[in-house]
Amino acid sequence: MFLAKKKKKQYDNQHHNALAKIVGPKAILFEKEDLLSYDCDGFTIHKSLPMAVVFPHNTGEVADIVKYCCANKVPFLARGAGTGLSGGAIPLNGEVIISLVKMKNLLSIDFENRQAVVQPGFVNLKLTNSISNKGYYYAPDPSSQYVCTIGGNVAENAGGAHCLKYGVTTNHILGLEVVLPNGEIIEISENGIPDIPGYDLMGLLTGSEGTLGIVTKITVRILKSPEGKQTVLAYFDKVEDGSHAVSDIISAGIVPAALEMMDKTAIEGVEAGAYPVGHPDDIEALLLIEVDGIIAGIDEQIEEILKVCRERNVREVKVAHNEEERGRWWANRKTGFGAMGAISPDYLVQDGVIPRSQLPQVLHRISEISKDSGLRIANIFHAGDGNLHPLILFDSRVPGETEKALEVGTACLKACADVGGTITGEHGVGIEKKEEMRFIFTEEELDAQTQIREVFNPMDLLNRGKLFPTPSRCMDVRKIVNDTIATN
Amino acid sequence: MFLAKKKKKQYDNQHHNALAKIVGPKAILFEKEDLLSYDCDGFTIHKSLPMAVVFPHNTGEVADIVKYCCANKVPFLARGAGTGLSGGAIPLNGEVIISLVKMKNLLSIDFENRQAVVQPGFVNLKLTNSISNKGYYYAPDPSSQYVCTIGGNVAENAGGAHCLKYGVTTNHILGLEVVLPNGEIIEISENGIPDIPGYDLMGLLTGSEGTLGIVTKITVRILKSPEGKQTVLAYFDKVEDGSHAVSDIISAGIVPAALEMMDKTAIEGVEAGAYPVGHPDDIEALLLIEVDGIIAGIDEQIEEILKVCRERNVREVKVAHNEEERGRWWANRKTGFGAMGAISPDYLVQDGVIPRSQLPQVLHRISEISKDSGLRIANIFHAGDGNLHPLILFDSRVPGETEKALEVGTACLKACADVGGTITGEHGVGIEKKEEMRFIFTEEELDAQTQIREVFNPMDLLNRGKLFPTPSRCMDVRKIVNDTIATN
Repeated sequence: MFLAKKKKKQYDNQHHNALAKIVGPKAILFEKEDLLSYDCDGFTIHKSLPMAVVFPHNTGEVADIVKYCCANKVPFLARGAGTGLSGGAIPLNGEVIISLVKMKNLLSIDFENRQAVVQPGFVNLKLTNSISNKGYYYAPDPSSQYVCTIGGNVAENAGGAHCLKYGVTTNHILGLEVVLPNGEIIEISENGIPDIPGYDLMGLLTGSEGTLGIVTKITVRILKSPEGKQTVLAYFDKVEDGSHAVSDIISAGIVPAALEMMDKTAIEGVEAGAYPVGHPDDIEALLLIEVDGIIAGIDEQIEEILKVCRERNVREVKVAHNEEERGRWWANRKTGFGAMGAISPDYLVQDGVIPRSQLPQVLHRISEISKDSGLRIANIFHAGDGNLHPLILFDSRVPGETEKALEVGTACLKACADVGGTITGEHGVGIEKKEEMRFIFTEEELDAQTQIREVFNPMDLLNRGKLFPTPSRCMDVRKIVNDTIATN
Repeated sequence: MFLAKKKKKQYDNQHHNALAKIVGPKAILFEKEDLLSYDCDGFTIHKSLPMAVVFPHNTGEVADIVKYCCANKVPFLARGAGTGLSGGAIPLNGEVIISLVKMKNLLSIDFENRQAVVQPGFVNLKLTNSISNKGYYYAPDPSSQYVCTIGGNVAENAGGAHCLKYGVTTNHILGLEVVLPNGEIIEISENGIPDIPGYDLMGLLTGSEGTLGIVTKITVRILKSPEGKQTVLAYFDKVEDGSHAVSDIISAGIVPAALEMMDKTAIEGVEAGAYPVGHPDDIEALLLIEVDGIIAGIDEQIEEILKVCRERNVREVKVAHNEEERGRWWANRKTGFGAMGAISPDYLVQDGVIPRSQLPQVLHRISEISKDSGLRIANIFHAGDGNLHPLILFDSRVPGETEKALEVGTACLKACADVGGTITGEHGVGIEKKEEMRFIFTEEELDAQTQIREVFNPMDLLNRGKLFPTPSRCMDVRKIVNDTIATN
């Protein structure tokens, strides 16, 4: 035992020395106390120590690290700010973590073609802050945008409250530089071109959760800030009325910039949190609706929204009087997950998606799951997209309750899949939802995907064990395909 | 020789009989005089006869045909309306053509979730015609929309005049049923969900030019028709002024529904064509600009557009007085390619894309290419997207002039690639631009794509010889990847 440990230590030391030569001795961590901060990301239920964490300064160093790992069969993965919620950056196999936080520069801005080029470690919100004085912004706005990186956003295809109107990350990526899992560097660039020839590798890489390559440079679309925006807050006595109002607004031809919903438990939480705004404590649902665009068009849309709410028996509906009030409403919403800490010792965020028309049915089903399990569930979510976020409230000190919360989360996802929805809207699969992939994909469909992974990643060293159910059929797949053909 | 021919005949007969058993004897063509109509698509320069054309009635028949072809190593490909402009549906290897024109139904419409499900042979414009009475439409609008099929649109990721604001086909596809090249049927469906877990197979299939699978059912997004639209026509004495106006309009934060440009030669053509509207004959450029949306917002945008045009020295600018005038302007534009027949015996349409800011430089370069070659070039194009369509005018009766026109086309594409653009905006690669793929992709990048093709299509029976330069390194690629890793 002692000998084996010693041997591993020697083996690790050899890798540490080689990696330190690539990035320099100040850009590597390998002492256990340093590695502890990297044993998980925002999904804290599973933990595992990396062999080392390296901090490359440029694309060449990333490629050299990857080539070294390949030559020595050392598993590796990339990490941004570590805010991911599904465990995509957890070093399950004692990986070398390639942290991209030192590659954090804004490389160029081209206002004429509405593009900016950033390194992967550049923080999301800093981009908008860098260009807002010229009247531009970057649209994808995950709640973690003040700390999460654009490289991580690409890996997870991140969304945000405003993706209803503006789309998710993949709709804003115009070019990528990628280090492939064998260390080759490729450029995928469309320069704002809507349809590049050949296969859509940009779409394939975006949202692939760090399993197909490491993004080292990103060209993003920047948008002109809307001339004006206006925000409505509507209180409903019945969840059904609020849900129907959501569908009616979209059916009326309005595409709000954001269309958010909270239920009664969620309202209790946010009012007990850091940013209360005085929501009534006896309503069943509220909608937060934002419209933006050319000022002349906004009033008409607001009138239409008020009309829909009234037709759906709204108790009270109000338009923000000024930017300060608008800001308070959004702070109340955006800090909603954390606010649940005020009413429950622990909570688990789930993330499912359903067709918009199924909102009333699925919210009803979630309330049944809550009753059956005895755990409270708060719902704060992107209603316009049908992207639900059930927050399962529990107490980890009560034996068995963590497990029960996980089961309740799975049941909520099943409810989404059962109505033709899916198991994640924006948080990704990572390790958290690998098994739930079977709710929505057949074996053949999973095969088609694992085969693609094998093409990019034939040695299976990059971010092994993520995204697909295990045991993966990855290695048998080519054989199966050939058999299928041969026997037909 | 005679014996070999007889043997081939027997061999073909055997396949004809087997295929007729699958689709029925009335749904197959194999006589030479019938096959002649299928020896090319809209790219008429290369021709090749298919072995047979089959007309399946449903997905099961498509799968059975594919399985039969695999078991007997017979090459095959799918065909829609045959309007493709790059030769994607040409049976280069004497393929069995699987024509999808009998699978032409609108299967369902779901206004609440804004979706429709169609079969691949359903004609693009019929979808809008089927839902316009309820105030909805389908956005992608290629010029051939009155005849092209939505299945073909998916294969080519078709665009259209209105893709500047509304995006290309891939932005409107919500689900696909696909017969894989081994005959397996898979469903890729997101039900309007912005970010499905796993890899983006829908994006990968869309625009793959019939090389990864055969689409047999398509769920598309339908949009609420805009409340109003308004159209502006602007005449410029200098191409540069028109080009700068394009950039200025976008920089002003306006996203027009369409932003089209024609140069002097193009104007000469359309005025000699079937739908003249009295454009002056001495201007160098015109812009056709359409704005749509909520009525209250339109006037403000039109004012801003007029202001930009005046700042860029417009000679004359006018707003359509009514729907009839608007319709005439669009007919003049949409029949523009065909109108070139009035001023030249032959013409070749090219299709390249550039960053918007490079418009003046690239248009200047194209005029130089025209002067050097002695061939006139007309430009009618989607300026807002930077999607150029140089129309090279030539006379095929003059020996050598066809070859010269092809060379000029290639030179125009090179000019696009040289400024960071690409070689096709919406017409695809097919067989026409296989070699030009090297203008924009390195060998490594082409390898990554051909490897994906190999995963889906390991026997290389589906639409062989399209999309990538030949000789393809496809078969050597896995070996190369492994070698690269092993030697590092």
